[in-house]
Amino acid sequence: MLNLSVLSDPVFCPHSLNKYASIMACGNGYLGLRATHEEEYTQQTRGMYLAGLYHRAGRNETNELVNLPDITGIVIELDGVNFTLLSGDILDWERELDFASGELRRRVLWRSPGGKCYRIESRRFVSLDQLPLVAMRLSITPVDANAQLVLKTGIDATQTNSGRQHLDEISVRVFDQHYMQGIYETQNRAASVVVSAYCSLSRESDNCFTAKNRSLTAHYGLSVAKGDTVTLEKIVWVAHRGDKVLSHQTFAHNALAELKSSAERGYASLLESSGAAWENIWKNSRVEVASSDNLDQLALDYAVWHLTAMTPAHDERISIAAKGLTGEGYKGHVFWDTEIFLLPFHLFTRPQVARSLLRYRWLTLPGAREKARRHGWSGALFPWESAASGQEETPEFAAINIRTGIRQKVASAQAEHHIVADIAWAVVTYWQATHDDVFMRKEGLTLLLETASFWMARAKQVKGRLEIHNVIGPDEYTEHVNNNAYTNYLAWHNVACASRFLAMFGHEDAHFTQLASQFLAQLWLPQATADGVLPQDDTFLSKPAIDLSRYKAKAGKQTILHDYSRAEVNEMQILKQADVVMLNYLLPEKFTSQQCAANLAFYEPRTIHDSSLSKSIHGIVSARCGDTDRAYAFWRDGIAIDLGEDPHSSDEGIHAAATGAIWSGVIQGFAGLQIEKGELSLAPKMPPHWHRLAFPLRWREAHMRFTFENDVLTTETTAPVTLTLWGKTINITGRQVWPQKDFTTPDYGTATSGGRDDA
Amino acid sequence: MLNLSVLSDPVFCPHSLNKYASIMACGNGYLGLRATHEEEYTQQTRGMYLAGLYHRAGRNETNELVNLPDITGIVIELDGVNFTLLSGDILDWERELDFASGELRRRVLWRSPGGKCYRIESRRFVSLDQLPLVAMRLSITPVDANAQLVLKTGIDATQTNSGRQHLDEISVRVFDQHYMQGIYETQNRAASVVVSAYCSLSRESDNCFTAKNRSLTAHYGLSVAKGDTVTLEKIVWVAHRGDKVLSHQTFAHNALAELKSSAERGYASLLESSGAAWENIWKNSRVEVASSDNLDQLALDYAVWHLTAMTPAHDERISIAAKGLTGEGYKGHVFWDTEIFLLPFHLFTRPQVARSLLRYRWLTLPGAREKARRHGWSGALFPWESAASGQEETPEFAAINIRTGIRQKVASAQAEHHIVADIAWAVVTYWQATHDDVFMRKEGLTLLLETASFWMARAKQVKGRLEIHNVIGPDEYTEHVNNNAYTNYLAWHNVACASRFLAMFGHEDAHFTQLASQFLAQLWLPQATADGVLPQDDTFLSKPAIDLSRYKAKAGKQTILHDYSRAEVNEMQILKQADVVMLNYLLPEKFTSQQCAANLAFYEPRTIHDSSLSKSIHGIVSARCGDTDRAYAFWRDGIAIDLGEDPHSSDEGIHAAATGAIWSGVIQGFAGLQIEKGELSLAPKMPPHWHRLAFPLRWREAHMRFTFENDVLTTETTAPVTLTLWGKTINITGRQVWPQKDFTTPDYGTATSGGRDDA
Repeated sequence: MLNLSVLSDPVFCPHSLNKYASIMACGNGYLGLRATHEEEYTQQTRGMYLAGLYHRAGRNETNELVNLPDITGIVIELDGVNFTLLSGDILDWERELDFASGELRRRVLWRSPGGKCYRIESRRFVSLDQLPLVAMRLSITPVDANAQLVLKTGIDATQTNSGRQHLDEISVRVFDQHYMQGIYETQNRAASVVVSAYCSLSRESDNCFTAKNRSLTAHYGLSVAKGDTVTLEKIVWVAHRGDKVLSHQTFAHNALAELKSSAERGYASLLESSGAAWENIWKNSRVEVASSDNLDQLALDYAVWHLTAMTPAHDERISIAAKGLTGEGYKGHVFWDTEIFLLPFHLFTRPQVARSLLRYRWLTLPGAREKARRHGWSGALFPWESAASGQEETPEFAAINIRTGIRQKVASAQAEHHIVADIAWAVVTYWQATHDDVFMRKEGLTLLLETASFWMARAKQVKGRLEIHNVIGPDEYTEHVNNNAYTNYLAWHNVACASRFLAMFGHEDAHFTQLASQFLAQLWLPQATADGVLPQDDTFLSKPAIDLSRYKAKAGKQTILHDYSRAEVNEMQILKQADVVMLNYLLPEKFTSQQCAANLAFYEPRTIHDSSLSKSIHGIVSARCGDTDRAYAFWRDGIAIDLGEDPHSSDEGIHAAATGAIWSGVIQGFAGLQIEKGELSLAPKMPPHWHRLAFPLRWREAHMRFTFENDVLTTETTAPVTLTLWGKTINITGRQVWPQKDFTTPDYGTATSGGRDDA
Repeated sequence: MLNLSVLSDPVFCPHSLNKYASIMACGNGYLGLRATHEEEYTQQTRGMYLAGLYHRAGRNETNELVNLPDITGIVIELDGVNFTLLSGDILDWERELDFASGELRRRVLWRSPGGKCYRIESRRFVSLDQLPLVAMRLSITPVDANAQLVLKTGIDATQTNSGRQHLDEISVRVFDQHYMQGIYETQNRAASVVVSAYCSLSRESDNCFTAKNRSLTAHYGLSVAKGDTVTLEKIVWVAHRGDKVLSHQTFAHNALAELKSSAERGYASLLESSGAAWENIWKNSRVEVASSDNLDQLALDYAVWHLTAMTPAHDERISIAAKGLTGEGYKGHVFWDTEIFLLPFHLFTRPQVARSLLRYRWLTLPGAREKARRHGWSGALFPWESAASGQEETPEFAAINIRTGIRQKVASAQAEHHIVADIAWAVVTYWQATHDDVFMRKEGLTLLLETASFWMARAKQVKGRLEIHNVIGPDEYTEHVNNNAYTNYLAWHNVACASRFLAMFGHEDAHFTQLASQFLAQLWLPQATADGVLPQDDTFLSKPAIDLSRYKAKAGKQTILHDYSRAEVNEMQILKQADVVMLNYLLPEKFTSQQCAANLAFYEPRTIHDSSLSKSIHGIVSARCGDTDRAYAFWRDGIAIDLGEDPHSSDEGIHAAATGAIWSGVIQGFAGLQIEKGELSLAPKMPPHWHRLAFPLRWREAHMRFTFENDVLTTETTAPVTLTLWGKTINITGRQVWPQKDFTTPDYGTATSGGRDDA
């Protein structure tokens, strides 16, 4: 048995309601459900989302992930008093998300303001077995006297995204005194959602149903004797479609039939099936660490939980939102996060999902081509923020400028073009890890060609060389610069790979090849200073630096924007995240260990880490430079993004990329996984207080498992694999044991020379 | 000085939040503002509405009064704890609406869960002097230690109508670090709203502004020493337009300029101006009673408060919503309530407002004509529910049928046609009280002619007489009946008056006159049984009756629909309100006192009074029948509709018609006001515990004042008036004293014989 972690919400606190609603959210890649309490709190934001269900609510709005009608809310009236933990006393409290079964549980012993005690227990899960299924149970026991109970629950379509309503109510209906059904359609009529809910109470009660103001509600009133427990079971089926193949009626009828057969099985049986599906996930993806700090294992389980819950493995027309399916932050849009931070996990545990995520980009090429064309470039300019169609979805405005009182425009859509090369990087990495020639021949080459074409059009001739002007690198505190190192290197890599793979697959095109060679020969790649520091862009090194310690102390909160406008920040050496460190991470073969260390040393003090993407990458690069202590410190800071003390860190959803980075920090950091000269490379070096590290890994046709313990690496594989271990190339088969002392270890984990030849 | 009442919210209770938010709402006919607390509560519905600002949010929706961006919410964080009365202890509490000044005040002494005490005082008013102006003050005093305060407030456009969003955010902006402005437009772009808010803190603080997810928010953080008071003043200007004469920019600029000049004056000065406007209202409309029960006077002041706050006296394109401007019930639609229950108050205190309300119907004639035409009739069929355009706005569906699980269709729009005759009745009554020939010549005759034409088309020949089939009378528990007494008598009155006034103003039309004579001669008017009971319709008397006592005990809650479907209720002698009693009230000259008493005796036991319009009318008819005790009991039940014990009676807004009935119950009931043979008639008879009754009254050119005390009526008038007093016709001028003993009193207050000649 896997001894999986349990994530706890240690104490009821109004301030942290939304944090725990996000981090304890349940999901299955199809549907995400925030871990909100049954009872309402003013600060609590309920949320249920379907992957890929976006809608634009009006003018000046962007498409956003639709917050669906709520099914989790239950008004609990105990002897005339509305149950709320803000009043009365909490005598006993336990709340946990059980990663093994996927069940969210709360047990409360509550004394009402009037002095009566009640035990209130609730359980809930989103099925990993049947994607449209959500099941809940609520049990109430009056502890010290008979009680009069009122329960009200149903389908509440008054839900909005911060006041924006996306769904029209088409009809609501009650069937057989037990089944409620609401049919909804997005206001643009493109998609419909049918929410069907079965409610049943363990005891006789006065029932009625009301339908008013978009809420379909079942009301139960009953007396419960002291010590007796009454249980409400609610099974919900959330069907969704973006087509009109079936009539509303037939579609809704089918959904009801599905619900009925699930309701017949009952909560316990449904949970068991879902738990079995989770068991499979853990078996194939779990990273195990034996650490003196339990949080390390918890974080890794937390990461795999959300990496599973957020990923629409069932539908390649959808990718992963920046907050997964746990909240409305970034409006559910898809960023470069998917390719750079999330794809590695899938690639090495479920490569077919990595393929599906790349297929999403391939399917949305029309939008990317159109965006490039609109701006006068050829090829594909992928949107900075993407939703269902692949068109640019970045909102027009961000925060109020503190000097002018006017909202500032968001520049990312105009200039944060590195996403194009990031996607190409992911295509190449995918092929390296899978050798999936079928994909490369069709989608892969197209993506490489279109992205490369963009860069060749985007670069401009300046004094005999090609430069890329007016871009924003990953560091969004430095806007509209020329020759951003990250962008230029990645663009070069993009074109080089396009060229190489076209040749490799016999798809050469003389015109393209010629243009590509010219581009590769002429593109300016910023060069390191004598100290080994790569300039972030043409002007960065000439800007003044200021003391950032007070802002670094509040990393992630962008407090610098309270003191300086964006324009002012732009003119100083102030980084949200360090582009060059990121570049060192993505193209390790291009840089020596010494260069990486120099960049870390120079850029880190200038980096506030206001992006959740920042510290984890610093951690991996530190690990590769051999500084495991520092790497661990960064990794722990990365964990704290969602799991730390800040009660508001994750109000609008978890940080999807950061969960990917928890996995990457261990596998690419402490286990030293890298693709070197196209082959797998490992160099485990654990933090001192870790005694054991074990993880499964997929690599081409092989299912592998690595266990590192007592300076010995045990390898298990279903197929032979060539592996560079601690700098030495070996071939592994079956189960083998590799004592670290047998490997000479100078320079392990660092790159070969900085030549331009990779992949 | 008028010694005006103060309406108190006696104790903080989560259950009654919305009741008090409605009944203590402020308004000025232009803007209504629910009396919600600064801090949020899950059950609390904030609401700010502009009269006439309707919008349809999507398919299957009707136009509804738009809930505007909120300005009243303030997040109050006291030493890190969100202020909420659900936690901690309330050591002192006072909350009141001061009718004299129009100010809503709350004073709380609160001990936080951590044990620290704070005094929190807030004040607020909607200006009666400058209609777009709302002003607020919030003062906080840490009582027993220094405190760290955070305040957040601004313009929160996440507000919805039960999840329906009506406004698009066009722009938000901060000016001069003090002024916030949001520009919004209805999604159909027909109307725009500019909300401008000035915030100023009495002390230095850390400030910043955020604009996110439709909320523009000012944040203040500061330390306050023990015993010191910090005050936040917020002045808001809510501009609205339905045209595009000015650009958004200019319109918003002007609004900001208005706000700035108001903000310069400050809260106290603005309140004084508004209070002066209220003083004028009280002087001209207040009914004074000296009663041993203070609630009697409170109710009368409450009525005048809301009758003023709900009435868009500034714009004749708008009428009065069923919940005034205090909530979203009935979606802000206009019903017959306006003409029958609200117009009398205005007619006898501010006749120009009564004229404006009738002008609204005249302006919306196109919609009424279109509805008649669509159903194959001529003339004007006014919509059962009306909004801005005069088109039918009744929602399609009501509650779920308890037997089938399907939502039931609302039949009112199809068959509740009596509203046509109700409007005609109001036109005639208006002319009787004003002799406004200019109005009658233009709008009045048109309204009478169009409504009469409708009835002549609507009636059908059945065996040699005209009948009106398939209607719903005011009693909505009896649907689709033939020859509903209320409808037939009112239709007859409508056609008779049209005929008479056309002749009177020399606008006779031979064709119309002939048709009208035929209609008047042939229309079947149900006749009383031997007991004097007028049958409600052709079949009512043949239906079975059941014991209604348990439903009558919960009058207003429609609990009968928990046990019987509407179809089942329809087949029994079950009344929501009594049509025939209503008819007796409206056309007193048609019925003898004995007939009225017989109808009361027969119908009242069969009436649940599930309509808020029911009891007050029973009260007036009882008073006219001489039964003052019973009249008082009904009147008090009418008061209880909003001011009674039920914590949820007024969640979705006050009962506008019921406030009109509070006034009518006294003036038309206890003072015995009636129009008899076209002239004014009075017959004061007070409940035994009333010592004095005084009220102003407008009648044609005269401003009058009546005071009844010690069996003596004192009359004051600015112009001579012919008055029937206690059955005897007198002429009054100047100030005169009329001892009741000088009048022989048999039959006073009762009607003349039931002849067909009226007006």
